Amino acid sequence: MAILVTGGAGYIGSHTVAELLDRGEEVVVLDNLQTGHKAALLGGKLYEGDLRDKELLSRLFSENSIDAVIHFAANSLVGESMQNPGKYYDNNVFGTLSLLEAMKDAGVRRIVFSSTAATYGEPEKVPIEEGDRTEPTNVYGETKLMMERMMSWFDKVLGIKYVSLRYFNAAGAHESGKIGEDHRPESHLIPLVLQTALKQRSHIAVFGEDYATPDGTCVRDYIHVSDLADAHARAVNYLREGNESNVFNLGNGQGFSVKEVIETARKVTGLDIPVVTEPRRTGDPAVLVASSDKARSVLGWSPTRTRLEDIISGAWSWHQSHPQGYGDE
Amino acid sequence: MAILVTGGAGYIGSHTVAELLDRGEEVVVLDNLQTGHKAALLGGKLYEGDLRDKELLSRLFSENSIDAVIHFAANSLVGESMQNPGKYYDNNVFGTLSLLEAMKDAGVRRIVFSSTAATYGEPEKVPIEEGDRTEPTNVYGETKLMMERMMSWFDKVLGIKYVSLRYFNAAGAHESGKIGEDHRPESHLIPLVLQTALKQRSHIAVFGEDYATPDGTCVRDYIHVSDLADAHARAVNYLREGNESNVFNLGNGQGFSVKEVIETARKVTGLDIPVVTEPRRTGDPAVLVASSDKARSVLGWSPTRTRLEDIISGAWSWHQSHPQGYGDE
Repeated sequence: MAILVTGGAGYIGSHTVAELLDRGEEVVVLDNLQTGHKAALLGGKLYEGDLRDKELLSRLFSENSIDAVIHFAANSLVGESMQNPGKYYDNNVFGTLSLLEAMKDAGVRRIVFSSTAATYGEPEKVPIEEGDRTEPTNVYGETKLMMERMMSWFDKVLGIKYVSLRYFNAAGAHESGKIGEDHRPESHLIPLVLQTALKQRSHIAVFGEDYATPDGTCVRDYIHVSDLADAHARAVNYLREGNESNVFNLGNGQGFSVKEVIETARKVTGLDIPVVTEPRRTGDPAVLVASSDKARSVLGWSPTRTRLEDIISGAWSWHQSHPQGYGDE
Repeated sequence: MAILVTGGAGYIGSHTVAELLDRGEEVVVLDNLQTGHKAALLGGKLYEGDLRDKELLSRLFSENSIDAVIHFAANSLVGESMQNPGKYYDNNVFGTLSLLEAMKDAGVRRIVFSSTAATYGEPEKVPIEEGDRTEPTNVYGETKLMMERMMSWFDKVLGIKYVSLRYFNAAGAHESGKIGEDHRPESHLIPLVLQTALKQRSHIAVFGEDYATPDGTCVRDYIHVSDLADAHARAVNYLREGNESNVFNLGNGQGFSVKEVIETARKVTGLDIPVVTEPRRTGDPAVLVASSDKARSVLGWSPTRTRLEDIISGAWSWHQSHPQGYGDE
């Protein structure tokens, strides 16, 4: 039986495909390559196309024996979602509806969903637990929450079981050195910082130094992308064992501030990284740190690459060997 | 300036069109006539087509000077929504997305939304107030809640102001005798009871006699369709006055049980109405009664046709003069 990975050519998707291949799984990838890269696929069978293409989905499910889906495909830029909400509802929510309908038609009853900490919005407390209030502060988080809610109804009504994995800032690169982070446009802190070290950017912008945090900059839970990949593979097995639908946070267990990330990158690279302070961005909570206790106890998962210096070192190796990311691929 | 009424050929839509025409408003109707009836339109300019037809919407907004939209168009069968959730997400949520995108493109910044008490699910308390927990117990209610949330994001991001009207069981017929209730399939209690009186049905099914209510049958808040129409017209004016987005319950102020409705219909018609008791349906709360205090104080609205006997008498006149509803129209 094969696992379908939607958005499998993206950053977390491609690391998950690598993890599944390592585990001996058969992998089918659906990706429209709008933000993913063909070169990020270390294996698997690629279908190039859009989630909302019903005919393609029907063909994909009929040509492969798929018993589970891992669903990454989505737009994920917070800023863009606040400029163009319709794009996020259409691609993310409608894309998921199309996928769930195709799964229903094909009789596929397991889906692992790449959700986000942005479903919580401004947290009631940290570390955040799965039962905490979900009140997204941006459209991106709202659409991911709608996708979760839609899955819960497809479970109640049609018995499609889901695991939703809510996480935080994916970071780092694959230990093989072959795959890493290449978003266009890039909006993630660690690659932006390392591109600044490489002089591809003149400076790194820090949005707000007046948050209620130890050094005034936002604190986030950076989690190694290979630890995330491991969690997605475990979640598939959790569903294969016949368990009920569930929601898990995935986090590092500790937060790092924007300034700590920049300082650590300076140490790792030994290079100058100029900083410019900008005003706060709308919809950025001060601190986002997850409790992963539930994932640890139920999925037996724990992150193994938790030191910020190690995460940034791996990313730095990738950026040095791939200064243009995946290039044109 | 004209008001666009989506779903204007439906039951509540057509009564609202009649109310707007009485008030001297120019009315444009968009309806795909899947559940609406051309004969239910007492005026206005009809565009026959689907909300998700972007080209039609663009043409409609360019051919008319629309300053506000009243949005009824949706599938609204609770039972069907629990059989085929995808249809409800697609028609209701994506229909609304398509409408909001067209409004954005046309610069139309006011929408009055026909929401539902089903957004609350099993109420925490009765009467239900607008700030109470929203936890729908069926997909129909869930999609209406998603539509409300989507509107709140289109307000935050794009400044499209909305009024969401959450109501309960619309009932009765227009005092002109020209329009009334004709759903196919019919799923609403009062028309089903009156069709039974007309011997078009052998009996009326009562789903559950073991609820925690005075007579064991479900209690609902029946509200005259012309009172609802009045509230929609007031909500348009509320937005035209430049007010902020808001949510209002619309209710009769008192609940009536299924048995009370049947007894009153027997009295009004003087006819036999056989009853068969069936098991409870999934997702039916015991009591749904609204507090309309907020709509009364903010919109200056109050229902004027609140006696169950009067509501049923009006409906009975319509059913007697239109035993086949709108026929084939």
